[in-house]
Amino acid sequence: MVMTATESSTSAARSFGPAVALSCRECGQRYALGPRFACEQCFGPLEVAYEFGDVSRESIARGPNNIWRYADLLPVPDNVADLPNMNPGLTPLVRADRLAAEVGMRSLHVKDDSGNPTHSFKDRVVAMAVEAGRTFGFTTLSCSSTGNLAGAVGAAAARAGFRSCVFIPAGLEEGKIVMAAVYGGQLVAIDGTYDDVNRFCSELIGDPAGEDWGFVNVNLRPYYAEGSKTLAYEIAEQLGWRLPEQIIVPIASGSQLTKIDKGFRDLVKLGLVEDRPYRIFGAQATGCSPVARAWENGHDVVQPMKPDTIAKSLAIGNPADGPYVLDVCQRTGGSVVHVSDAEIVDSIKLLARTEGVFAETAGGVTTGVLRKLIAEDGLDPQAETVVLNTGDGLKTLNAVDSGVTATIKPSLDAFKDAGLL
Amino acid sequence: MVMTATESSTSAARSFGPAVALSCRECGQRYALGPRFACEQCFGPLEVAYEFGDVSRESIARGPNNIWRYADLLPVPDNVADLPNMNPGLTPLVRADRLAAEVGMRSLHVKDDSGNPTHSFKDRVVAMAVEAGRTFGFTTLSCSSTGNLAGAVGAAAARAGFRSCVFIPAGLEEGKIVMAAVYGGQLVAIDGTYDDVNRFCSELIGDPAGEDWGFVNVNLRPYYAEGSKTLAYEIAEQLGWRLPEQIIVPIASGSQLTKIDKGFRDLVKLGLVEDRPYRIFGAQATGCSPVARAWENGHDVVQPMKPDTIAKSLAIGNPADGPYVLDVCQRTGGSVVHVSDAEIVDSIKLLARTEGVFAETAGGVTTGVLRKLIAEDGLDPQAETVVLNTGDGLKTLNAVDSGVTATIKPSLDAFKDAGLL
Repeated sequence: MVMTATESSTSAARSFGPAVALSCRECGQRYALGPRFACEQCFGPLEVAYEFGDVSRESIARGPNNIWRYADLLPVPDNVADLPNMNPGLTPLVRADRLAAEVGMRSLHVKDDSGNPTHSFKDRVVAMAVEAGRTFGFTTLSCSSTGNLAGAVGAAAARAGFRSCVFIPAGLEEGKIVMAAVYGGQLVAIDGTYDDVNRFCSELIGDPAGEDWGFVNVNLRPYYAEGSKTLAYEIAEQLGWRLPEQIIVPIASGSQLTKIDKGFRDLVKLGLVEDRPYRIFGAQATGCSPVARAWENGHDVVQPMKPDTIAKSLAIGNPADGPYVLDVCQRTGGSVVHVSDAEIVDSIKLLARTEGVFAETAGGVTTGVLRKLIAEDGLDPQAETVVLNTGDGLKTLNAVDSGVTATIKPSLDAFKDAGLL
Repeated sequence: MVMTATESSTSAARSFGPAVALSCRECGQRYALGPRFACEQCFGPLEVAYEFGDVSRESIARGPNNIWRYADLLPVPDNVADLPNMNPGLTPLVRADRLAAEVGMRSLHVKDDSGNPTHSFKDRVVAMAVEAGRTFGFTTLSCSSTGNLAGAVGAAAARAGFRSCVFIPAGLEEGKIVMAAVYGGQLVAIDGTYDDVNRFCSELIGDPAGEDWGFVNVNLRPYYAEGSKTLAYEIAEQLGWRLPEQIIVPIASGSQLTKIDKGFRDLVKLGLVEDRPYRIFGAQATGCSPVARAWENGHDVVQPMKPDTIAKSLAIGNPADGPYVLDVCQRTGGSVVHVSDAEIVDSIKLLARTEGVFAETAGGVTTGVLRKLIAEDGLDPQAETVVLNTGDGLKTLNAVDSGVTATIKPSLDAFKDAGLL
């Protein structure tokens, strides 16, 4: 199934816009675009390779107010904006002056991906997988998920008319469970960690029972992962077509961080932004910090660990893209840092109190890492910096103990007696 | 304090863009723009009066991707887009082909306002009140709220640097309580209904203790209420600058419905859309249906009732704009309809299953009313129709009993044994 030179112009390729092949990240071997994810030669992960056409700031500005404005840079059909899809993206880039003042930064933005349809960045990656799944003729969409992905797949499958069956570790937050179930697909909890769920899905995909199933983060993973590039495109466009000097990205599998780097490099290559240095910082919770620990110890191999943290959306103990994250952070002059659950909660509240952004635990991780980097002189407080919030506080309510200040009778006297003035 | 002709061009007026005065909806008496809400002559409610300048589809398209693209039609300063505000709006207008097919409509869209920063339409109205509060020099933002508004005020106050103190009836959904509290302001629960909370706030506003408080839905209400016009503007623009033929709007105080009508008429007056008939339908929960009952009985007075429904965001038993809602629905050829809690839950699930939109109970009310209107021949299934979803299912999790299909061990055999294939 290794591709020949002419295969890049088959009709299948036209369903993938500027994408021309899958290419092994390890050995560079190329394959025709298909539902495959591992190299037959070296078992390395496959990623999408492109031949971009003419793309300008103007052609992008003429596109819709969602990720499909970047369709010319993504593995999706030309008419993608007309197909039933969740149309995520173009979420707010919040100018965080009050947070900046409080932590001592000059120029700070929060990219708030809770603005997506199911309120996490996962809508971006699932939108890609839906198009690939449609092209390959899959009838069921599936995934292993720490919660946000399950909701995104359930919603997108409903919108696009797929069956769905998604797998989560038992014990997730109620908001994530209800949101994954409400769209009417099957939601199966697995007794075990996310990594157990992932292994189970690999088993199912090799079984005839899973034959016409598109697992968005397994056999559709090369397409799916490209969705994270849109975070890089949007941030640059929203900054006025400029790369940020520093960006803090949460790490679960690590894929998002590597794709943001790929997205920034796409923009430089296409002449859409000036080529200036940027530093990428990875953020983990101490209770699931395999990549941060490898970074601290100077290892290039990531030792798996069993997660124990409130940041469940980042609780992947054996992150597939860990080594690539280490490469990117090394190359760009960043680092990988972890913060405790207490720091996560404190940072969720700080972000809410200063900017009115209610982040899920993953946003507490990135904001906490920002504070830690500042305290440890790990980044430049004068440089233009972006912090990612990838999810929504409404899905991790139990992480914060916020509640009413007081309950009173409906009278002015009762209010005054309560000492609240 | 009744205004003279020249007062419309004072410096205060410039802080309110095209707004030139407040005008009594009952007797037409005009007042200078200020923190007032009731007519001194007849106690009627005041609303904003405008002298619009040149506004074109092109000037709007050049604006930002949020409600400030309509700043020339709103009571806000010219530089509003540069001020710290939540910048809500331009939420998705979802083409609901699958829902349309299931209920038997030709052309159906869902305007999904869960895409706003705190995931309800309240961000639109609060954004207006923040600007008015800033201009009037208030230091505390406050409100009476059924939940969504409390979160919107808390977030916007944090972003804009106000203190906040918000009042809710005791017993709201957990998601709404946590979201209102997390931004660090005061959250006070009142033993009583929303209508009790509202009366309490009117008492506080007359007390010296509330002197520098801006109550977004009391003394800032004329400005606040204008925010709902942006729903009309967006729907028309997103349909390609065309008014929908039918629209279904939830009723709490009734303000939103009347302002959508005002917004449509603005667009016709300015020549931005063709003047064609549209019908506005009001939607209530049976357990809080004072306006629907008045409609059924042919009354033009709305008899208050004590709310008892899962649709807590619509649980206003004494709706201030009830009579105006009756007028609008009468004039446009619509009606006011109510649905039971069971129909609400069923409709939340229908919307989720067909379109991947997870609505709060208010969205179940509008979708339920759509089905009821179809069943009763109350609307034209061939006409272009928009259903409003004003809030987010994550805030009313308990309304739906969705959960995992099964919990299994991480093995293919366990999956097959569970009979899920």
